[in-house]
Amino acid sequence: MNRQWLYARPPAGKIGPDTFQWTETAIPAAKEGEALVRTRLLSLDPANRAWMMGKTYRDALEPGQVMSGFAIGEIVESRSPGLKPGDIVEGDWGWQDYAAVPARRLVKRTTKAPLEMLIGPLSVTGLTAYFGLLEVGRPKAGDTVLVSAAAGAVGTMVGQIAKLSGCRVVGTAGGADKVEWLVRELGFDAAVDYKAPGLRRALAAACPDGIDVYFDNTGGPVLEAALSLMNLRGRIACCGNVSQYDVDKPAPGPMAVPGLVVTKRLRMEGFIVMDFYDQRAVAEARLARWVEQGRIKAIVDVIDGLENAPQALVGLFEGRNRGKCAVRVA
Amino acid sequence: MNRQWLYARPPAGKIGPDTFQWTETAIPAAKEGEALVRTRLLSLDPANRAWMMGKTYRDALEPGQVMSGFAIGEIVESRSPGLKPGDIVEGDWGWQDYAAVPARRLVKRTTKAPLEMLIGPLSVTGLTAYFGLLEVGRPKAGDTVLVSAAAGAVGTMVGQIAKLSGCRVVGTAGGADKVEWLVRELGFDAAVDYKAPGLRRALAAACPDGIDVYFDNTGGPVLEAALSLMNLRGRIACCGNVSQYDVDKPAPGPMAVPGLVVTKRLRMEGFIVMDFYDQRAVAEARLARWVEQGRIKAIVDVIDGLENAPQALVGLFEGRNRGKCAVRVA
Repeated sequence: MNRQWLYARPPAGKIGPDTFQWTETAIPAAKEGEALVRTRLLSLDPANRAWMMGKTYRDALEPGQVMSGFAIGEIVESRSPGLKPGDIVEGDWGWQDYAAVPARRLVKRTTKAPLEMLIGPLSVTGLTAYFGLLEVGRPKAGDTVLVSAAAGAVGTMVGQIAKLSGCRVVGTAGGADKVEWLVRELGFDAAVDYKAPGLRRALAAACPDGIDVYFDNTGGPVLEAALSLMNLRGRIACCGNVSQYDVDKPAPGPMAVPGLVVTKRLRMEGFIVMDFYDQRAVAEARLARWVEQGRIKAIVDVIDGLENAPQALVGLFEGRNRGKCAVRVA
Repeated sequence: MNRQWLYARPPAGKIGPDTFQWTETAIPAAKEGEALVRTRLLSLDPANRAWMMGKTYRDALEPGQVMSGFAIGEIVESRSPGLKPGDIVEGDWGWQDYAAVPARRLVKRTTKAPLEMLIGPLSVTGLTAYFGLLEVGRPKAGDTVLVSAAAGAVGTMVGQIAKLSGCRVVGTAGGADKVEWLVRELGFDAAVDYKAPGLRRALAAACPDGIDVYFDNTGGPVLEAALSLMNLRGRIACCGNVSQYDVDKPAPGPMAVPGLVVTKRLRMEGFIVMDFYDQRAVAEARLARWVEQGRIKAIVDVIDGLENAPQALVGLFEGRNRGKCAVRVA
């Protein structure tokens, strides 16, 4: 049997159990040029929610389709010359046990590392942090780097890579526990609870020399506060807008745009990890070495069972996980 | 006598006659290292209003001071070795007939051109258009370039330089007359009246291939509409926020920030012309050649008499002028 979660209907406001529908069908057969993949780990990402909102860098999700999502899987059967049973691949075949996928839509992973690493620091997540920080934000040693959703999948990596780059690193996260954990466990220089009152004042205190690079995962109030603290010629790497994904009515945009962008000569730049895939091999090798040397801690939060995927995604938006959120399917 | 306009008090909402106060004092004497300048032409700029709002790239204006503003003047008396009577200089010595200014705060203009050219296309205004478009926006031949406040000092230059760069050029301006004038007189491919209903639809029709570069002088509704029409990897050169300068209550920021910045991988970048002054000589020579060859039309709107400066600035925010707005003082 092939167990599947379908995307049932667009959420009115927050996602919930109604957003998805469980179904069981026959295991598909691979056609010529395809491979049959068995899902091992599903990656849960804020983007999963954004895809429900309309066209982004990809088409919007259509009700009735298998819920989309990046995954790591193992080839069970192959009708493509480049893949053989046992190969580990990644791709977006969605929330199901098995999928027959054209080989060109699968990326073979040859890095020898546990699957948790391949879906965490050595995955799209790690690469997003690496390229967004280093290629878009371009920090110099001594810069102050702020990252929002710092306890999340991308944030934990951004903070650690920024520390390796000689920067003062400040993160925002929801709740006192996470904030304390960022400093104690991941070596952040300071962290601020964005849910507590006085966000701007707290950020100002945490960034006494202002902010040179802001890695923005959230948009919303943290972006607004960060804009007011950016230094001359600061850079904002726009990675996500997670504060606005799981809501009914989007908030107004940041008042400081474009006023402070002009007067402080800021650069705000959006990016998608795929834009940098020509440099993927080098980046992956560096990330792997940093993890191996213990210079980067891999924070992966694995939930067991495909049946728990919807609750895990709900939990992601409630801020329940730390680091990469993944579901073990097999 | 030295006639002066003082900055009297911060406007509550729009500027008006109360914002300024007329006064007459003695002509000052130049001290060692200074020169006495006689004002010939005053440059009126949206930035004059922005300086009343607080600290920008310079300190805020203080009530009681002589109103600030760029000007072109002639040296009357010099106690600095680099300047002699008759030299033409530019600087910010404000709204008055005479000023004793430290020589290091004066820039000697040696380009042989009428004063109207030196305050218009061959001035800070022309350089702002040149550097903002070419160095920040970086258009390629075939790109669609949108510019807001297109009939203004910077906008008329941006549009013409973009045409010289092989781009499709679209402008926004207030009113049917200006829109028609941009196309007929300045060679814009299309122009849109931002005050008419259906701004986004009209812009979409004027930009059938989307927008690659948006030169933003205004922020506000044109920025919001432009964001929704930007192409993948589009660039927004943030030059000003004039829609928000002469208002009581600033409008909310653009909703599309940071959402569309991420998904379309946009770059929004603020700049100030002074950032590019190391390249000033080359830029000025090019602008001068283009004007000389008739490839760029210099649009300078000169109002006679220092006494009329406040009304001229009010008129600027009411959209009365076309091209560069200047006041002839002597």
